[in-house]
Amino acid sequence: MAGTKHLNLNWTKKPSQACRSSVEATGRCYKMDIYMTREATAAAISELTELLGERLSTGSSIREMHGRDEAYSDPALPDAVAFPTSTEEVSKIVKICAGRAVPIVPFGIGTSLEGHVIPIHGGISVDMSRINKVLEINDSDLDAVVQPGVTRTQLNEELRATGLMFTVDPGADATLGGMAATRASGTNTVRYGTMRENVLALEVVLPDGTIIETGSRARKSSAGYDLTHLFVGSEGTLGIITKLTVRLFGQPESILSATCAFETVDDAVNSVIMAIQIGLPMARIELLDEVQMKGMNKFNPDLGLPEKPHLFLEFHGSETGVKEQVELFEGICEEFSVSGFQWATKAEDRNRLWTARHNAYYAGKSLRSGAEGLVTDCCVPISALSECIARTKELIAASGLIAPIVGHVGDGNFHLLILIDPKNPVDLKAGKDLASKINKLALSFGGTVTGEHGVGIGKKQYMLEEHGAAYALMGVIKRAIDPTNTLNPGKIVEVN
Amino acid sequence: MAGTKHLNLNWTKKPSQACRSSVEATGRCYKMDIYMTREATAAAISELTELLGERLSTGSSIREMHGRDEAYSDPALPDAVAFPTSTEEVSKIVKICAGRAVPIVPFGIGTSLEGHVIPIHGGISVDMSRINKVLEINDSDLDAVVQPGVTRTQLNEELRATGLMFTVDPGADATLGGMAATRASGTNTVRYGTMRENVLALEVVLPDGTIIETGSRARKSSAGYDLTHLFVGSEGTLGIITKLTVRLFGQPESILSATCAFETVDDAVNSVIMAIQIGLPMARIELLDEVQMKGMNKFNPDLGLPEKPHLFLEFHGSETGVKEQVELFEGICEEFSVSGFQWATKAEDRNRLWTARHNAYYAGKSLRSGAEGLVTDCCVPISALSECIARTKELIAASGLIAPIVGHVGDGNFHLLILIDPKNPVDLKAGKDLASKINKLALSFGGTVTGEHGVGIGKKQYMLEEHGAAYALMGVIKRAIDPTNTLNPGKIVEVN
Repeated sequence: MAGTKHLNLNWTKKPSQACRSSVEATGRCYKMDIYMTREATAAAISELTELLGERLSTGSSIREMHGRDEAYSDPALPDAVAFPTSTEEVSKIVKICAGRAVPIVPFGIGTSLEGHVIPIHGGISVDMSRINKVLEINDSDLDAVVQPGVTRTQLNEELRATGLMFTVDPGADATLGGMAATRASGTNTVRYGTMRENVLALEVVLPDGTIIETGSRARKSSAGYDLTHLFVGSEGTLGIITKLTVRLFGQPESILSATCAFETVDDAVNSVIMAIQIGLPMARIELLDEVQMKGMNKFNPDLGLPEKPHLFLEFHGSETGVKEQVELFEGICEEFSVSGFQWATKAEDRNRLWTARHNAYYAGKSLRSGAEGLVTDCCVPISALSECIARTKELIAASGLIAPIVGHVGDGNFHLLILIDPKNPVDLKAGKDLASKINKLALSFGGTVTGEHGVGIGKKQYMLEEHGAAYALMGVIKRAIDPTNTLNPGKIVEVN
Repeated sequence: MAGTKHLNLNWTKKPSQACRSSVEATGRCYKMDIYMTREATAAAISELTELLGERLSTGSSIREMHGRDEAYSDPALPDAVAFPTSTEEVSKIVKICAGRAVPIVPFGIGTSLEGHVIPIHGGISVDMSRINKVLEINDSDLDAVVQPGVTRTQLNEELRATGLMFTVDPGADATLGGMAATRASGTNTVRYGTMRENVLALEVVLPDGTIIETGSRARKSSAGYDLTHLFVGSEGTLGIITKLTVRLFGQPESILSATCAFETVDDAVNSVIMAIQIGLPMARIELLDEVQMKGMNKFNPDLGLPEKPHLFLEFHGSETGVKEQVELFEGICEEFSVSGFQWATKAEDRNRLWTARHNAYYAGKSLRSGAEGLVTDCCVPISALSECIARTKELIAASGLIAPIVGHVGDGNFHLLILIDPKNPVDLKAGKDLASKINKLALSFGGTVTGEHGVGIGKKQYMLEEHGAAYALMGVIKRAIDPTNTLNPGKIVEVN
């Protein structure tokens, strides 16, 4: 930490006396609210410019692009944005910043939904989008080795000719590094798993710049602590992911998509629960409530589906296997007031259906012009899903707000898009109150406040309630791995 | 740490001067080779006796039973064995011992294969076998909540009437706590996953006695660091598992088991590789080489199978699904010199087959009377499996030893049972040399030295080579969570 010893203590924010004394004595600061001096940041930027040349930007438009994500959160600007092109450069950037306690915020493509990439303490945003090659496709082993800036559609494009596919599909065309960092999932998860199940190995730059590899391409291992899973979902707070080995699946011989409408959300959900319970290996089971369907029709004029609660479905398998699944599922739905299936067998019809589903966020927003969306992300045990959604609908009605529901209900995961006018404080408060009530409801059912979006800034307030005494252990781990609290400070866990 | 301040430094082993000085100054010791004073141990035993009465034993036969596991490792006795009956008692035991830096070694049923449960630094063996109730079976959510002393057959017995099953099946009837601690797997893993995929949530007693809960019964979550996966496979070095939520699957409508013989191991392995690559959802694909088959016939006189390389197979699914899988697999095998299938459709025939497979360890041992077995546990990417096994067979031939091969080849995992006379030092050295060569071979193929048995003492020597710089991070995590190195010291990672 020699670099910090000569700091001119010219604070960017006013520190507490205890913090100031500690920093003056040690040249290091563990407090969350005070990170760096202007001089330290300037020195880091100067050294980073030497390393990266024009790939270190302090321009205001670039900084603004790296000061927000897709959700409604207050933006905050980084002091500079770095665009490394290799793992070694990432390691050097980390060493330059960590030595001066200048925060580092890894950035993929900015589609996070809880403020993960917002540099709330300033510092350097490290944009990984130029480290974006597919390095290996191992068709014999059903895996691929990719750089973190590769997006999910880019990977699937490169896989097209191989007969293989990468399955995790959040709504946005996110980077795989970002998806691993937030433990993302999507519409296929009920069959193929989340990033938790689909990341086999990682290369990571630690907070001191050390480059490590976790896991291996072997399908299983009992060789010590599961570091791969520790970094998956750590949101850039423990290390920066610079390479991923991800699992691939064979493209199914037969794919059949469908939509079906129900009289009530409850009936739709109960059909799903029964399908899961009998072990139907469905590839996708998505719920869209009647409010969301109104938005879908508005946003996709050629969709033309009845404005009733819907399931969007997909079946994968051999031809006979798919046929068998469809028959079983139709049989289930008949017990629950289904009002007819619309089948999409052709690839173009399927693509139109799932593109519409992936744009559900924007479709929902179209229900109130100029509105921003507060998104919830609860996930509960399947057995609690029906009651949890019913009580959620009551809470929405009581709030007076518009809040369409979309859910990966096969996983017990559902989202509300609470539409608010962010300039109207009454509206904003009502939206936040509703989100809070729904989050606490999910916890009361033994669930989680975030099934797939992550904690970031937005969900941090619920972590103690969700994890209890285990939350302190997360702080212990963060402090041990990142003692100077350099990496994405203020996300997931506060370290004081 | 007040309890350690008054220690009479009456060492059980001679400490280094540096270590002695550190302990004298602080009352605490971080060195691996010196843990406690006799007085500290005696005081802990006295306090534990007050807590547990007769459930704290210092009798020599009980201590001997807790001083070894099923593998060939030097035994070491605990100073006492505790038999708690609740999480709260486990927490109290940990507090009593941690305050005095007396080691604690969690013990399930003693079937580990790398010396995990051997108290190499003495201390208290905490036998979890009396905390053994199935607490909940949630058939709607396909999960069960169990205590750590429940064994896999006990759980399946209790599940029988529900139509559900717990799938992870190591050879021994291990406890679920032990299986989670070693990240165990078994013959079904190719279809249903290891303990990594099958543990959803845990209750854990931390090294300071705090009781935490990790994860939830929701199917997925992005709520912070993945503590569940950190404890799964941590071999009792970070915490003691006191409750587990495990995943269940529906019992398949149709099950078909079979054996088939091949002219060469290579042909058998290549059939498996092709089946995996086309995505056949087989439930079990086990390889037994011609040497192992000789042992199988000897140990199971009514098995009567040809002494050629075999696959033991199982197909799960609907009736039509199983039929489809079987046809596809038969088609594959015909390309690889298969010499006929023997089908077992009846439950009793299937059970006989899989009981024989689960007893493969003992069958292998029967090939050399009085022999002990050194077991290897390599796992490599599927694409490397054929070459890795071929080169393994060459190494066995060169060693002059008998070493049957059994493998969960659908996962790329295979075991050698290297038969040695442990009293013959030449034999022992030859066995250890062979194991070492095979482990290094697996690493050279990008694999792991342990697919499912864990590190314990036996595999520690390979960890630096396998993990590189990441191994140091395991030490950072161990030190942070267990700063006094109380929990199962000397396993997985040395902390000096």
